[in-house]
Amino acid sequence: MLPYAYLSKGVMAMFSGFDLCLDVLKKVNLHGKDLAGGFSRLAFREEDRRAREELMALMRALGFSLEVDRVGNIIGTVGNIGDGLPPVALGSHIDTVPQGGPYDGVLGVAMAIGAAKEIRENNPNHRYPLQVMVFSGEESSRFGIANVGSKAITGYLTLKDCFSYKDDDGVILFKAMRDFGLSPEWMGRSRLLPSSLKAFFEVHIEQGPFLHRSGIDVGVVEAIAAPTRMAVDIEGRADHSGACPMNMRKDALAAASEIVLAVESVGIDEYLHGTVATVGVCRIEPGAMNVVPGKAHLKIDLRGIKKESLERAYERIRSAIEGICFSRGVKLNFNLLSKGDPVVLDGGLRRLLGEVCDDLGLRWTDMPSGAGHDAMYVASSIPTAMIFVPCVEGISHNPSEEVELERIRPGYRALVGALERIMER
Amino acid sequence: MLPYAYLSKGVMAMFSGFDLCLDVLKKVNLHGKDLAGGFSRLAFREEDRRAREELMALMRALGFSLEVDRVGNIIGTVGNIGDGLPPVALGSHIDTVPQGGPYDGVLGVAMAIGAAKEIRENNPNHRYPLQVMVFSGEESSRFGIANVGSKAITGYLTLKDCFSYKDDDGVILFKAMRDFGLSPEWMGRSRLLPSSLKAFFEVHIEQGPFLHRSGIDVGVVEAIAAPTRMAVDIEGRADHSGACPMNMRKDALAAASEIVLAVESVGIDEYLHGTVATVGVCRIEPGAMNVVPGKAHLKIDLRGIKKESLERAYERIRSAIEGICFSRGVKLNFNLLSKGDPVVLDGGLRRLLGEVCDDLGLRWTDMPSGAGHDAMYVASSIPTAMIFVPCVEGISHNPSEEVELERIRPGYRALVGALERIMER
Repeated sequence: MLPYAYLSKGVMAMFSGFDLCLDVLKKVNLHGKDLAGGFSRLAFREEDRRAREELMALMRALGFSLEVDRVGNIIGTVGNIGDGLPPVALGSHIDTVPQGGPYDGVLGVAMAIGAAKEIRENNPNHRYPLQVMVFSGEESSRFGIANVGSKAITGYLTLKDCFSYKDDDGVILFKAMRDFGLSPEWMGRSRLLPSSLKAFFEVHIEQGPFLHRSGIDVGVVEAIAAPTRMAVDIEGRADHSGACPMNMRKDALAAASEIVLAVESVGIDEYLHGTVATVGVCRIEPGAMNVVPGKAHLKIDLRGIKKESLERAYERIRSAIEGICFSRGVKLNFNLLSKGDPVVLDGGLRRLLGEVCDDLGLRWTDMPSGAGHDAMYVASSIPTAMIFVPCVEGISHNPSEEVELERIRPGYRALVGALERIMER
Repeated sequence: MLPYAYLSKGVMAMFSGFDLCLDVLKKVNLHGKDLAGGFSRLAFREEDRRAREELMALMRALGFSLEVDRVGNIIGTVGNIGDGLPPVALGSHIDTVPQGGPYDGVLGVAMAIGAAKEIRENNPNHRYPLQVMVFSGEESSRFGIANVGSKAITGYLTLKDCFSYKDDDGVILFKAMRDFGLSPEWMGRSRLLPSSLKAFFEVHIEQGPFLHRSGIDVGVVEAIAAPTRMAVDIEGRADHSGACPMNMRKDALAAASEIVLAVESVGIDEYLHGTVATVGVCRIEPGAMNVVPGKAHLKIDLRGIKKESLERAYERIRSAIEGICFSRGVKLNFNLLSKGDPVVLDGGLRRLLGEVCDDLGLRWTDMPSGAGHDAMYVASSIPTAMIFVPCVEGISHNPSEEVELERIRPGYRALVGALERIMER
């Protein structure tokens, strides 16, 4: 690690906030490289821990005072705390999906650190303290629940929830957090109050192809889609694949396949309204070449920012599943895991970002977010804004996730510009 | 274990061959009981080893002279070896699929031991020696290859093959056999010669519902379907499930689902000709709630006894798969794992079984076998016959596999009757 704290002021000045951002990206991504491609830093696992330690050492060297709250959110503060003014916060997350890319989450943390440095240098007596927040457990890949850190501090995750989610190895979320050195039993003490922060900003890659293809560099997020999630268990009958007549089968995989295509078809119909639907998990039992599959387990993810479209899609998916299972004579166990309403972000901050972009001459647009983000929970307590930057072809949650530096720099400039204006208020 | 060898002749006589058969069943099924239901005695695993040891101890106590050949087939011989006449062999296998039932394979071994005892007792000077054969690795669940033991002794499995098949843990078949104490490198020395045996009989549950539903007790198998097996790897693109528009996805699971339904539809069409088609394996990557599946792996099993129907089904399945992957723009890797011709069993033995059944007044019929059996490979060297007995609702490869004793006893009587007649020839 570069000993930033010991660099002379002149060298530091040459080393811009955006350069620092790239350096943070590189350092976090030293950890969790997956041999099968991409990065696997699943929440509360060893790779996550190593990346967090690297990041905290770097933040400490940059002069942040650090705190890790009861649920693992890293909070680094710089600036004039003595005045009693609430900090302006910014951040994202550094955990990933299995074989994810190098930018989902990490870029937002890196830009936050880079922007904080730039504000400090250009305006050493900035009015509000700056707080970089690195939320824990943002991705749902490990426990089937997303945004653990940001939900916990805003009351969307309770202690009871920590006992009900577990990973594929049967490890309960509560235990994983305890083993990670955290104190989820005291999570109530880490609540974010409306007075705790002046504002919160999150920068994130779009994870969709709109910005990349349209040539627009900055997306100011209007609303974030909350995922509606379903688990489907199908019980058919395992039979000998050679001896069981076609007309006597209760093939759980065939039923699951009809469901996958029904979900896709609802997504295609409702995409007019920005709604998308996905079956991301499909497991069958016993899963042997010579046995008709007896059981199938699916997980379905439905998202959109239009409530009416979401409701219609949910009803269509649910009734399609029931119809398919009924007509195939297989048993169905349908579970609605979560159902969330779209979150509209702070109007004042959106206008501020628009003005900054106009003044800087950036190509920008208002847009929705199909993916969930920590910002949507923070938004329940704090005025919150989100900036999207383009990623190549919109590919994300994938080892080939990529960005073009010159197309993400405008998003960074918008972030710094907005922070500067807030400091003047 | 009951010390059979020490029982007085009177007690042994009360303890009939069929009772012994039930006792063998019970003893073998002491091993590999699966906590999730049924029996899991996968080939060359610890549960398989323990069941084999139990069985060999029991056979030894019954007076069989035992040999385990280079590939793990157990061969127990009783009777007048000195005359130089070839033995009459009978048997099946005791390995199972994961969570299989208690009868698939085991019943044939148990009936062979029971019948051998009955022949010995009723006709102590029987002309031909009797040989009970317990074939190794009959189920394909572990290595993706079925009938390891019977293929090896008939030249259908080569040493090279032993290096090309591996289980889900990456263990190569050759190594699994070596670790099991076998010598696959010498498998050539265990070849079955046409002169080695006078005849071979295998009794097996039907694994289909025909006998059970029709009220017929004995099925004399005319021909055995050889499975045609395919592996399909689909490469789409893993994308964020919330942010990737429906029309830009390359969803490997959606492609796989279309394939599953296409395979099922070909099976339904060709079932007129007795052909069945199954997707028994479906695995996806990364398999996370919030990621559009990027990869899918399917295994397809196609069986029938009409060559024309099989060829047509294979071509339809293959072209459907190609069409689906082409139209969805996903990469396809199609592998034909095996393609076998149906095997017609020995006409003389089939007639003999028919006569025996008629003389004993049993309800019997000629019928095909959709499932593969060791008998189909033995049949390439030795006159071979197969007897099917009913299993409840045809359910097999399933923890609920069940038989009704009074409906399997006629199959046992037919076996004993046929052996008695052969002894007179």
